Amino acid sequence: MIRGRVKGKVWSSRHVETLPGGALLEVEIDGGSRLIAFDPLGCDTNEAVLVTQGSVAAAYFNGRTAPVDALIIGSIDEKTK
Amino acid sequence: MIRGRVKGKVWSSRHVETLPGGALLEVEIDGGSRLIAFDPLGCDTNEAVLVTQGSVAAAYFNGRTAPVDALIIGSIDEKTK
Amino acid sequence: MIRGRVKGKVWSSRHVETLPGGALLEVEIDGGSRLIAFDPLGCDTNEAVLVTQGSVAAAYFNGRTAPVDALIIGSIDEKTK
Amino acid sequence: MIRGRVKGKVWSSRHVETLPGGALLEVEIDGGSRLIAFDPLGCDTNEAVLVTQGSVAAAYFNGRTAPVDALIIGSIDEKTK
Amino acid sequence: MIRGRVKGKVWSSRHVETLPGGALLEVEIDGGSRLIAFDPLGCDTNEAVLVTQGSVAAAYFNGRTAPVDALIIGSIDEKTK
Repeated sequence: MIRGRVKGKVWSSRHVETLPGGALLEVEIDGGSRLIAFDPLGCDTNEAVLVTQGSVAAAYFNGRTAPVDALIIGSIDEKTK
Repeated sequence: MIRGRVKGKVWSSRHVETLPGGALLEVEIDGGSRLIAFDPLGCDTNEAVLVTQGSVAAAYFNGRTAPVDALIIGSIDEKTK
Repeated sequence: MIRGRVKGKVWSSRHVETLPGGALLEVEIDGGSRLIAFDPLGCDTNEAVLVTQGSVAAAYFNGRTAPVDALIIGSIDEKTK
Repeated sequence: MIRGRVKGKVWSSRHVETLPGGALLEVEIDGGSRLIAFDPLGCDTNEAVLVTQGSVAAAYFNGRTAPVDALIIGSIDEKTK
Repeated sequence: MIRGRVKGKVWSSRHVETLPGGALLEVEIDGGSRLIAFDPLGCDTNEAVLVTQGSVAAAYFNGRTAPVDALIIGSIDEKTK
């Protein structure tokens, strides 16, 4: 997994039908690159999060048809940094 | 997923038979690198798009035989940038 | 697989329910980048470890529902370096 | 997928038995990095090609046992560049 | 696949039980980065090898439980370089 920080939401009104409903968050990874992850936890901007990538992200949705390759799986307890 | 911007179409007259019919778009990712993604949405040049990668892109085609590892899953609403 | 060195633990009190219980370790890869891997072996800080990534990491958990894309699969015998 | 240009063939007389028979081509990606892809199309040196990567490349071989993670899926029509 | 050169063996006395028995070799990729791959062929130090990555590497072991994401699938005939 990788550590990132939430930078904001992304909206996509026009999307494929198999995209699950829910929040898509832009996350900045250490080093400055960014990715967009599905958020099942309701994270806030600036929250530190744990992101998993690839087919295991899609497997979260019970079935392999969700076209999601990045998933927030946890909020990182900041005091552990 | 990653955010990108459509730069144009790519044509491949000679291709493997399992490649699904449809548009292949060249997409520029932040930082300047490019990839080629299957577009089921009919996106235009310069449109901001959300791209998913890996086996979850192929899963969109109902079956694991589509040799597609990048799929446009949404058009990004630009006002949310 | 990649070689890394354990830098510390990461805690995530709020996480998806499918995350397996166990230690999440921050691992530094040669070159300085970091990832967070599930540790089934009880590794210590500064220990050299072997990390596998992607869906094969999730397969360790008997079932494809574990959202884990990085797994420590061994402690590297340092004298072999 | 990524765009690349064929640089030559690679021969491997000693290989695992599950490697499918056929051409392995060295392909240069924009930026200069190279990968080796299985070529089912009979591409020539300097030809522009479309390469898919990961498990979807192996799925081309009808079964998941082919240890192939890069596949040329098309020749790019150069006039579209 | 990627081209690499064997740099030496890696030993891991303490490892997960699902790691298949066999040699783990450190391989240097063009550009200088390194990865550790399972070697079913008995390659020597300095030998040029072809490495496949991801879930297709694990599929070599007949079943998806091998936590191996990099596999040497061939020795490259050096005269073809």
